Amino acid sequence: MRSHYCGDLLEVAAGEQVTVAGWIHQQRDLGGLAFLQVRDRSGIIQVAIDPDQEELLSVAKSLRNEFVVSVTGKVRNRPADMVNSEMATGSIEVTAEVITILNKSAPPAILVNEHEEVSEELRLKYRYLDLRRPEMQQKLLFRNKVAKKLRDFLEAENFADIETPILTKATPEGARDYLVPSRTNKGSFFALPQSPQLFKQLLMMSGFDRYYQIVRCFRDEDLRADRQPEFTQLDIETSFMDEEAIMGMMEKMIRQVFTECLDVELGDFPRMPYAEAMRRFGSDKPDLRVAMELVDVADLLKAVEFKVFAGPANDDKGRVAVICVPGGAELSRKQIDQYGEYVGRYGAKGLAWIKVNEPGKGVDGVQSPIAKFLNDELIDQIVARSGANSGDILLFGADSNRVVTDALGALRLKVAEDRGLVEDSWKPLWVVDFPMFEEDGGQLHALHHPFTAPKENDADKLRAAPTATLSRAYDMVLNGCEIGGGSVRIHDQAIQAAVFDILGIEKQEAEEKFGFLLEALKYGCPPHGGIAFGLDRLVMLMVGADSIRDVIAFPKTTTASCPLTSAPSRVSEAQLEELAIKSTAVKEEQ
Amino acid sequence: MRSHYCGDLLEVAAGEQVTVAGWIHQQRDLGGLAFLQVRDRSGIIQVAIDPDQEELLSVAKSLRNEFVVSVTGKVRNRPADMVNSEMATGSIEVTAEVITILNKSAPPAILVNEHEEVSEELRLKYRYLDLRRPEMQQKLLFRNKVAKKLRDFLEAENFADIETPILTKATPEGARDYLVPSRTNKGSFFALPQSPQLFKQLLMMSGFDRYYQIVRCFRDEDLRADRQPEFTQLDIETSFMDEEAIMGMMEKMIRQVFTECLDVELGDFPRMPYAEAMRRFGSDKPDLRVAMELVDVADLLKAVEFKVFAGPANDDKGRVAVICVPGGAELSRKQIDQYGEYVGRYGAKGLAWIKVNEPGKGVDGVQSPIAKFLNDELIDQIVARSGANSGDILLFGADSNRVVTDALGALRLKVAEDRGLVEDSWKPLWVVDFPMFEEDGGQLHALHHPFTAPKENDADKLRAAPTATLSRAYDMVLNGCEIGGGSVRIHDQAIQAAVFDILGIEKQEAEEKFGFLLEALKYGCPPHGGIAFGLDRLVMLMVGADSIRDVIAFPKTTTASCPLTSAPSRVSEAQLEELAIKSTAVKEEQ
Repeated sequence: MRSHYCGDLLEVAAGEQVTVAGWIHQQRDLGGLAFLQVRDRSGIIQVAIDPDQEELLSVAKSLRNEFVVSVTGKVRNRPADMVNSEMATGSIEVTAEVITILNKSAPPAILVNEHEEVSEELRLKYRYLDLRRPEMQQKLLFRNKVAKKLRDFLEAENFADIETPILTKATPEGARDYLVPSRTNKGSFFALPQSPQLFKQLLMMSGFDRYYQIVRCFRDEDLRADRQPEFTQLDIETSFMDEEAIMGMMEKMIRQVFTECLDVELGDFPRMPYAEAMRRFGSDKPDLRVAMELVDVADLLKAVEFKVFAGPANDDKGRVAVICVPGGAELSRKQIDQYGEYVGRYGAKGLAWIKVNEPGKGVDGVQSPIAKFLNDELIDQIVARSGANSGDILLFGADSNRVVTDALGALRLKVAEDRGLVEDSWKPLWVVDFPMFEEDGGQLHALHHPFTAPKENDADKLRAAPTATLSRAYDMVLNGCEIGGGSVRIHDQAIQAAVFDILGIEKQEAEEKFGFLLEALKYGCPPHGGIAFGLDRLVMLMVGADSIRDVIAFPKTTTASCPLTSAPSRVSEAQLEELAIKSTAVKEEQ
Repeated sequence: MRSHYCGDLLEVAAGEQVTVAGWIHQQRDLGGLAFLQVRDRSGIIQVAIDPDQEELLSVAKSLRNEFVVSVTGKVRNRPADMVNSEMATGSIEVTAEVITILNKSAPPAILVNEHEEVSEELRLKYRYLDLRRPEMQQKLLFRNKVAKKLRDFLEAENFADIETPILTKATPEGARDYLVPSRTNKGSFFALPQSPQLFKQLLMMSGFDRYYQIVRCFRDEDLRADRQPEFTQLDIETSFMDEEAIMGMMEKMIRQVFTECLDVELGDFPRMPYAEAMRRFGSDKPDLRVAMELVDVADLLKAVEFKVFAGPANDDKGRVAVICVPGGAELSRKQIDQYGEYVGRYGAKGLAWIKVNEPGKGVDGVQSPIAKFLNDELIDQIVARSGANSGDILLFGADSNRVVTDALGALRLKVAEDRGLVEDSWKPLWVVDFPMFEEDGGQLHALHHPFTAPKENDADKLRAAPTATLSRAYDMVLNGCEIGGGSVRIHDQAIQAAVFDILGIEKQEAEEKFGFLLEALKYGCPPHGGIAFGLDRLVMLMVGADSIRDVIAFPKTTTASCPLTSAPSRVSEAQLEELAIKSTAVKEEQ
């Protein structure tokens, strides 16, 4: 039904006859002359109907936007004054000889040919119209390209794509599982995988050496803008490679994909220990496009009478730090108050500030409600250490280490966003040297998952000082987003048992949940490790989309429903009965 | 941890130092001399420990099968009398200089290094050992290769891989759905897709033109040998292509994959109308490796007194046919009786037979309990028409068309299998010209699914004679297996409404189930069609496996459970409560 795609007609010699097929993108009737724009996946071409073509003109008149047509005609160059430089094929057009209407269209519920502010709900309900818009087409085709380039890289490096089950058992990530009642084992349930973590480790134990999969994962969590109940992971695992080798290869992969898809050279990825990332950027996924850093000043403030500072400064678990906002002295009191509210979300009780007029002039060189609690020397020291210049503002955090780190880490990004202080560039890095465990209310938790290998290889030493132990985990961070995370895994039974003990996982619980993995560790488990990338988020970043919903063909709303298909929906009592379950939901309306 | 894979060492010059890593496949201690076989994904290499290497010899003595080691040493050619021609690397070995034990292994529950008859249950429970066996490794790596070649073909043809939801709404395939209770919309359920049928049609309506996906599908059906609750489909849809174009391209794809993966040239695929397939082979997926055909003889038997033949021969819905088994005159009475029982499963009430001794000699030339009901002329006509030679047997079916077709269709394959009459070759074909509808108890059903386009393009004519209408569906059949099935879809609202009417799908039901698709048809739906291939089955055929479980890394048993992870399993009451469901299963034991 077509000889060429619309977007490929520039390659066709003028005078050649072609047939295109697609949608009416636009139509114009200029007194006897008619012009159509026909759109397909590749682009848009103008179709001209010459004034002597009466029959075609009457067909053209009957066309409406989104009608499906095929058009046969000759390619010709447009007259110089008719060239449309904003259109990829704007220098040519097709003179229609045959126009066939393949299907009609009701007036579209969403305009395809111009940008229109419509609600997300409507966009999702008429997703097939939303997806016709050229920018949506390009995003999803870009996603296809990224996935293909990732596959190409991995296949060339000897990775095998091996599928793992979707109907499986609860996995250890700790988020809420989606459950599937079993009909043949009544009273039992499958869980949809939060990741193929255990299966990919089993594949290493099966000798597959290098595995990858672009795989759907599921988490039944309350949704945020960049979360979906089902999401796609590039899942990777290797044997006989250590963290250096794995990070090196994965970095090479991402660099290559950026070169091939965006023509961007990312260069070598810096490495940053977790502790440094938290200290300097208040985040385990620092956005290095923002130059501002958290500068610690507790040592200067131990002796001040101002309790807000002195308290945390003298507390082992406290922190006093400052960020210097270039040009921030112009912030109004109201704006500063708003930032004060913003850090309140992270537990901060206020936001002390110093506007710097003349560095080195002590109290006289600054403007600040807290200047009275400090002295010239202290102010000069703080200003000097933070590198503040005339016209900058210093914003303080003084509280527990966690509150200050979180609050200033978030504030740093917020202020940068508001004031255009985010560099337009790509800033990847590896965050490494994570602690194995974090403490929360006296209980230790795994910072990653309980199969992550510690740097300490001696089970007794690990038991003796768990919180001092670093893990062999690594996160790949790009522009403040964690795009991938992984680790070398435990391949030693004794270490695995120690980790479960430290985490307070009872033997019976470990047996029930991960018994098969512990059993597998007995039979010649190779040293192995891997990583998983969030494909939706990676593609979202690469195309500059605001939401992962824009890079997923049929996403769900933030209430985990699909306005297009009306899923989830009611099912018959008979269906439930067969599955041996009963709904306890109060049925308000049917 | 390695410089080379074991299987790649033939490419290394003798004398070069290498490091391999893998599993101890075998060890032999020959009085002071020791030999190890080290196995990885690529193959096996022999490691020799020279008699003067005392320390290494003692390490070697401590090794057991499935220990994980790395070995550093030099590659050398084996002496001519030590070459093992049954081993790919049998002409070389590595002389050990360093052996490092990376992990130990308990005695494996399944032998990895030799073939052992173990139960499927045990194989699945210790799948990580089962998968280490070289033949299982090769099957799964072959699957990876097939998937890659399919992708390569499709990407080159401009197909885009687009992901569709797993948490979705009941699809129209009609098998039982797996359900997932929704926590955020209590009382509602997602269904896992039986195929992405509606989504791929929506993607065509979204203008993506050429879509593919290697995608998991789910059916909660009672399982047979070649069925799994979750299976993988190569799912394809195109716009602006008719059935000729689609079949041509898909045939090219499969041909190319066979050439690239098996070095087999399939040649052009013959086309066979459904009616012919049923008539000649008693199957809509004829196995053309078997030469025997069903030969109709009703016209010869209308006048005989033998009611078993005359009844069906004179009935519009009856059929009398025969298959001629070459050399089958040697079948014993017992064997014939067993075949009689076999066809009984398909509803046949008996199995009449004629052993042919001398063709053309009438009653005297045959041996048969029914010869007495026939005469010389009839026997000669039947023998001649069936092409029987001396020493053959004719096996009869006489009953309703359906019973005879099914019974002889199955018997044909069974006898061929038993008697080695299956040609060792690849016999692909397309089955086409399916009826749109089949009748069952007065009710019409869609032979494919209700979105399949009829050849009749006029809704009124379609309504007038639905059973006379053929569909635009096509099945790709290989060696008696349907490996792919598809159709051109309905893109016209009026035709879609007519099909729903004919199928007795009420407007409200259609609205509820497929309302969104009907709505989408209004907005400029392009002509489109596609196909889906069962990847598991295709790979199974290509590698010559007996079961699809052998080409799936972690399959389920025939009771839809996983002996490795013990899925499905009990979950906590709290989890169910949160999902607003209750189990009604009688809890026998916890």
